[in-house]
Amino acid sequence: MSYAKSLKDLMERLTRLPGIGPRTAERLAFHILHWSDEEAKGLADAIVEVKKKISYCPDCHNLIQDGQCRICTDGYRDRKTICVVGEPNGLAAIENAGHYKGLYHVLLGTLSPLEGVGPDDLTIKPLVRRIKEKDIEEVILATDADAEGEATAHYLGKILKPLGVKVTRLASGIPVGASVDYTDKATLARALDGRREF
Amino acid sequence: MSYAKSLKDLMERLTRLPGIGPRTAERLAFHILHWSDEEAKGLADAIVEVKKKISYCPDCHNLIQDGQCRICTDGYRDRKTICVVGEPNGLAAIENAGHYKGLYHVLLGTLSPLEGVGPDDLTIKPLVRRIKEKDIEEVILATDADAEGEATAHYLGKILKPLGVKVTRLASGIPVGASVDYTDKATLARALDGRREF
Repeated sequence: MSYAKSLKDLMERLTRLPGIGPRTAERLAFHILHWSDEEAKGLADAIVEVKKKISYCPDCHNLIQDGQCRICTDGYRDRKTICVVGEPNGLAAIENAGHYKGLYHVLLGTLSPLEGVGPDDLTIKPLVRRIKEKDIEEVILATDADAEGEATAHYLGKILKPLGVKVTRLASGIPVGASVDYTDKATLARALDGRREF
Repeated sequence: MSYAKSLKDLMERLTRLPGIGPRTAERLAFHILHWSDEEAKGLADAIVEVKKKISYCPDCHNLIQDGQCRICTDGYRDRKTICVVGEPNGLAAIENAGHYKGLYHVLLGTLSPLEGVGPDDLTIKPLVRRIKEKDIEEVILATDADAEGEATAHYLGKILKPLGVKVTRLASGIPVGASVDYTDKATLARALDGRREF
């Protein structure tokens, strides 16, 4: 025996989400069965809605709702600086920190030869165009500090510097609040390399 | 800054699923954003569909589709034996093993005083009625082998035995294929208690 058809169908579709295996899908499907009809409908509508309403800003490629980018259209921002992030959640993290007041550019990925992600799969060409057409003075590379993020930053540095723009990279080092003896070797080495006069 | 409204709404709704925290919800929502419209619609429809189509068998309380219980209406089954499980996935596991040919009764939960689940929250009354009305000879208690499953089995044993029906419990012991030295103490004790002549 197996589960009823529509239950199996839901489980199968849930396993297409990242990190959801057959057992988790089963648990989620059973949970949804226990929901009220309204609650289930609410999740279903939210899924359809997000696809309908959310799009990418044609300039910075951040996620936008109702066709308007809240950052690109914000007149109080420094329009001469672009912070380049891999994904929209990188942008959200930097915005939440509340420290940066310039513009952004979301690459919508990171270079990953193993997964077949090359420069043309990212929004690098639109970035180059923005730098050339708008009066950009500094590009801050804020891709992740892992291997792929570093490789992406390296690649970008190589093609952006010839455009005559200042290219910087987020500092790597010991996180605020962390203790030195719990910091891994690679981070300590970076923190030493990047030491500043006190 | 935070995410666009419909994206936040989807994330919030995803966190209502068990085991989905804010970070996982974020990852899932971004994944759904990368899906095609058809794929997103497919998941949304599957959620609505499962609530519309799936119901509980009025006799055994297993999940059924289109109002017909495939097990209760199966004429080739032994109608004198009822196997009592906590949840429909317990039933599915036993069915998949392909060894049992009787009927089932799904409790739709296990007794859990801490979570406020008492006998009246389970399908115990309908079970008692089935045993009284149909000509049931044996009830196999197949609740989980954990504390709550054992407590539920104990409770059921106490109220079912006076009905004059044979009440049995699934054997506990070393799983097939497992080695003795990797088996935990409680299971070894059970396996010793339940030893059979060879």
